[in-house]
Amino acid sequence: MARSPSGDSLIERVVRILEAFDPDTPALTIGELAARADLPSSTTSRLVEQLVAHGLLRRDDERRVRVGVRLWELASRASPTLALRQVAMPFMEDIQAVVGHHTQLGVLDGREVLFLERLSARGAVINLTKVAGRLPLHASSGGLVLLAHAPRPLREAVLAAPLRPFTPATVTDPETVRRLLADIRHQGHALCAGFIDPAATGIAVPVRDPLGRVMAALSVVVPNDPDAWTHIGVLRTAARGLERALRAPRAP
Amino acid sequence: MARSPSGDSLIERVVRILEAFDPDTPALTIGELAARADLPSSTTSRLVEQLVAHGLLRRDDERRVRVGVRLWELASRASPTLALRQVAMPFMEDIQAVVGHHTQLGVLDGREVLFLERLSARGAVINLTKVAGRLPLHASSGGLVLLAHAPRPLREAVLAAPLRPFTPATVTDPETVRRLLADIRHQGHALCAGFIDPAATGIAVPVRDPLGRVMAALSVVVPNDPDAWTHIGVLRTAARGLERALRAPRAP
Repeated sequence: MARSPSGDSLIERVVRILEAFDPDTPALTIGELAARADLPSSTTSRLVEQLVAHGLLRRDDERRVRVGVRLWELASRASPTLALRQVAMPFMEDIQAVVGHHTQLGVLDGREVLFLERLSARGAVINLTKVAGRLPLHASSGGLVLLAHAPRPLREAVLAAPLRPFTPATVTDPETVRRLLADIRHQGHALCAGFIDPAATGIAVPVRDPLGRVMAALSVVVPNDPDAWTHIGVLRTAARGLERALRAPRAP
Repeated sequence: MARSPSGDSLIERVVRILEAFDPDTPALTIGELAARADLPSSTTSRLVEQLVAHGLLRRDDERRVRVGVRLWELASRASPTLALRQVAMPFMEDIQAVVGHHTQLGVLDGREVLFLERLSARGAVINLTKVAGRLPLHASSGGLVLLAHAPRPLREAVLAAPLRPFTPATVTDPETVRRLLADIRHQGHALCAGFIDPAATGIAVPVRDPLGRVMAALSVVVPNDPDAWTHIGVLRTAARGLERALRAPRAP
C-alpha cells in the first residue's frame, strides 16, 4: 500500500520530511526539503500540502515550510515520557534553585540519551544539551547512568562501536568505560569532568520507576572545579523525591 | 495518491490514529484505536506497524499502542513555538517564584488557546490548564488576550458561535465579550474571576514579537480573591523581560 516506485512507504517519506528539520534549519523551501529528504520535488510538494492541511507542517510569511504546532500537540498530549517530565519539573526547579546551573532530564532512546527537559540559569557554564537534543551514551553523565543500567546486549553493542572523543578527557577505551559503568552502578552516580567540554562537569543520578527499573537520568552541568562533587547530594535528594512522586497515585 | 476506497488520504488516516490518543487514554489496543480513528482493524494494524517501525508509536509491555518519543522529538527540535517556550521559561519561573501559583504560556491555534507550558506550585489553586491542552478563547484569560489581538474575521467568527459557560461567571453574551476585548486592548491585561472555576481567577498579559504582533499570552491562575489584581504588575514585568529577550540576538 502506498509504495513509491523505489519501494519506500508513504510513512517512510513523511518521516524523512519531518527529519529534514533541525534546530539550525527550522525553515526550508520545498527545494531544500526535497534535497534533504531525498525525494522528488513533486512528491515533496504534494506531501507538504497534505501535512500543512492537517497542521503538522505550516508555511511561514516567506512561504518556507516549518514544523506545525499541531504535530507537537499530538506528540505531547498523550506521551508517557512527557508525563514523567511533568512530574519531574518541580524537582528539577529545586535542583536548579540550589545548584544554580543547568539541570537536565534524559531518557534512553536507541543508542543515545534524549533530553526531555533542560532548565538553565542565566550566566551558567557552557552546556551542549538541548531540549529534544541527543548526546552519545558514553560521553555524557546522563548517558553513562542510562548505559550502566541498560540491558547487557545494548551495553555490549555500544562498547563494541567506536567511542567518539569530545575532549582529551572523554573516555573512549571500552574496558575503561566498562569499569566506569560498574562504578556508576556501585556508587549511584556518574561524575564526568570535562568529558564534553573542558570547562564543564556533568553529574547524573538514575531515576527509577515504581518497579525499580531505571527510567531516566537527572543531571546537572556545573563548572569543572574540584568541588563539583558537592552537588551529588542535591541530585540524589531530588531523585528520591521524584521517585516518591512517581509512586504516589496521580492527582486528578 | 494513497487514497482509500472512501477517499481519505493515508496522511488523513495517520492523523486520525494520532488524534485517538489523549491524556486520559494514552494506551490503546488495536481494536480501541480502530474504533476511535473510525478505520478498519486491518488498516489500523498495518499503519500502526509502520508507525512503530519508525518510533512514532510504540508498543508497551502489554502490547497496547502508545505515542512514541520519536514523534515528540521530531515535533519539538525544530519548532519555532517551542523556541518561544525556551526563551520564556526563565521568565515563567520568575513569575512562579513571586506569585506562587500556576503560570502558563499559551498561543492561538485555530479557535482555541493551546498551552505550550505550565509551571505549578505544590498546593496551588485548581487549574484546568494542561501542557499541550486547550481552552476556548472566550473563557480563559490567556484566550481572551489572544482573541483581543486576533484578526477581526477570527474574532467575529468566535463571537458568532455559541459561547459555552463553565460557571455562572463565564461571559457568554457576544456584546459583553466584545466590550471585554476592548478593555483588554486598552488596559493591557485580562482578569477573569471565576470564569472557568469559581475558586480560581485567571490573569493574562500579551507577549509581542519583535515586530509588535501579539504572539502569545502569559498568564497565572490564582485564588479568586479580591486582591488577585495585585499580580498584574508581576505578569507585565515578566512579559517585558521576555519581549526584550525575544528582540535580543540569540546566544550561540
